[in-house]
Amino acid sequence: MLVDKFILPEGKVYMCGHSLGPSLKTISDAMCNTLQDFASYGVSSWNKSGWIDLPYTLGTKIAALVGANSDEVIVSDSTVVNLFKALKAAMSLQKGRNIILTTDDNFPADLYIAQGISEVRYIKDTKADEIYENIDETVAVLMLTHVNYRDASVLEMKAINDYAHKYGVLIVWDLSHSIGIVPLDLEASGVDFAVGCTYKYLSGGPGSPAFIYANRKHHEVMQSPIQGWMGHNQPFAFEKEYASSGVRKFMSGTPAILSMKALEDALEVFDRSLIDKAYSIANEYSSLLIESLKNCDIEVYAPQNRGGHVALTHKHGYAFSRALIEASFICDYRAPDLVRLCVNPLYISLDNIESCIEKIRFIIEKALYLKPEYNQMQKVT
Amino acid sequence: MLVDKFILPEGKVYMCGHSLGPSLKTISDAMCNTLQDFASYGVSSWNKSGWIDLPYTLGTKIAALVGANSDEVIVSDSTVVNLFKALKAAMSLQKGRNIILTTDDNFPADLYIAQGISEVRYIKDTKADEIYENIDETVAVLMLTHVNYRDASVLEMKAINDYAHKYGVLIVWDLSHSIGIVPLDLEASGVDFAVGCTYKYLSGGPGSPAFIYANRKHHEVMQSPIQGWMGHNQPFAFEKEYASSGVRKFMSGTPAILSMKALEDALEVFDRSLIDKAYSIANEYSSLLIESLKNCDIEVYAPQNRGGHVALTHKHGYAFSRALIEASFICDYRAPDLVRLCVNPLYISLDNIESCIEKIRFIIEKALYLKPEYNQMQKVT
Repeated sequence: MLVDKFILPEGKVYMCGHSLGPSLKTISDAMCNTLQDFASYGVSSWNKSGWIDLPYTLGTKIAALVGANSDEVIVSDSTVVNLFKALKAAMSLQKGRNIILTTDDNFPADLYIAQGISEVRYIKDTKADEIYENIDETVAVLMLTHVNYRDASVLEMKAINDYAHKYGVLIVWDLSHSIGIVPLDLEASGVDFAVGCTYKYLSGGPGSPAFIYANRKHHEVMQSPIQGWMGHNQPFAFEKEYASSGVRKFMSGTPAILSMKALEDALEVFDRSLIDKAYSIANEYSSLLIESLKNCDIEVYAPQNRGGHVALTHKHGYAFSRALIEASFICDYRAPDLVRLCVNPLYISLDNIESCIEKIRFIIEKALYLKPEYNQMQKVT
Repeated sequence: MLVDKFILPEGKVYMCGHSLGPSLKTISDAMCNTLQDFASYGVSSWNKSGWIDLPYTLGTKIAALVGANSDEVIVSDSTVVNLFKALKAAMSLQKGRNIILTTDDNFPADLYIAQGISEVRYIKDTKADEIYENIDETVAVLMLTHVNYRDASVLEMKAINDYAHKYGVLIVWDLSHSIGIVPLDLEASGVDFAVGCTYKYLSGGPGSPAFIYANRKHHEVMQSPIQGWMGHNQPFAFEKEYASSGVRKFMSGTPAILSMKALEDALEVFDRSLIDKAYSIANEYSSLLIESLKNCDIEVYAPQNRGGHVALTHKHGYAFSRALIEASFICDYRAPDLVRLCVNPLYISLDNIESCIEKIRFIIEKALYLKPEYNQMQKVT
């Protein structure tokens, strides 16, 4: 759809956008301009170049993509830090309840954060019915990931929110694998809090800052555990006591400007209609992959409602992923046996998908995953 | 000393390095190379370009500058988030004590974080004797800033640590205004925890990531409130339970690589002997400023042991700072009446200091601070 806007690894099909979205061509210019401002004006750029407003201006852009009001989103910190803030804020609104309910197969980073905060109860099977069965009035917060990082299945956000609210449960959504590829409407879905990263489907660059959403209805009462001075109503008044309001409460320290500016550049590409189209084509691609690999010696996950990647399991999963990468299809591996293929149509074509299917069949046929060089583990997988 | 290594605002004397250090000339190349890696290799750069190790490789470099062991420092998040982690970790080691003791004139950002965590007791006067007087066995944590952001006075780190330890008090130091300009020896000084920013005297770029130090003696027992997956002993094993050790416990989410790489480039410039020399020359410069402005209609702070800036107060402080900036001396203003001048000899010469003195005298003589255009407040000061 927009392949000309990206720089893709030469001679490769980049099917790893669910992990790190590829670089936009304009990012170099955006960086040069920022470095130029820094060099020419030094500290004055905080005013002159609007650096100080970036958490809010980028928040407004993200809000437009997820169906939120512009005063409900900021860009700040990492997903992990934002999840910590959102969970703690939600928990502190739920006096007398101390359980965080989540799914067994949630992204481990999310589980670790929850485990550090309170008692965690796990739902064994990530299905709506199972989720409903586990919701009761002892639960403080339901923490869910919208698109599962393993099988790419998508949860029904509105139905789950509605059900949980009946029991007075607040919901914190992780949208890391959703934003930029799955249509979202946070306000209409009645979301309480949400967080997400911007370096996957939004191509914000490696480790680009994350976002945090807080529904207006919580703004007055909610408190962030991290009372960041950048969220003070008047950060440069240097008052002794903390005072903050609205989503500003979730601001922490000085934003990492270089990373913020790269993200700002990437966000120029996106609007909701583009995401709608990308979602629809991604679904065609994933259907084709799923259908075509049905009768191969490999298991393909086929959830009915899918995000932007397709997941396969294979008993030699890691070596299988190495073989596919060697054959120029950049995919990734998640322990213990999962291989993931991103089908983002912004830079992946139908031709790419068809060649990928062919290559997977070839790897299986020739058992290429048995080669010793594919069986040595790397640090980041 | 190293003026050729920096890009300085043209025709200006940049005396704002205590707020944002100026750009190094090499930062553009460092950024270009990083963007090239990103574009060419996408997600593979996490391994190929060592991105995944940056929090530790940069931590090792910072450790060398502050007299710490390389396994005691990581680079991660912002100062505010790191201070939150350090304070919470220190508090949780102090069962039965709930008071954070700090100074009344500590940097407000630090006060806000402490206020969000526990009961805060304030020391009215930031002097060693006053600090000692307030230390007793009800205090859990003493939170101090090494170089005062207002008057640039430096606290005696070792003596204070020794005294506090006698009462079982743990100390968290903020080194934001120290690192890169004041010699530090954290191990010899018996520091428990420390945090600091890297965008002032280390010129890491706007909002460059902060560091956090934890003394080895606390590694086994300490816990971070934010159980970040990047700190998991095996982040890519995707285990369900969190397990982390050493200073890794303070890692949170995916590091902002662009900002990390700019900092990596800046750190190439620094070693301890350079900082020793810079400290000594900065002291000559500040002595000269203090002596020369004694008899002007302005109050100059003259602490005996000083950091890298000189502070003046003037009843028209903000307008005074605007007049000085207009006269090409980039300084900054801190509410309600403080004007700060950085004297970092890495890029400021004796000539610069002498012209600055002359200009200050001129502004006072002509009462230029009364001009209406200097009395309109900007967003970031």
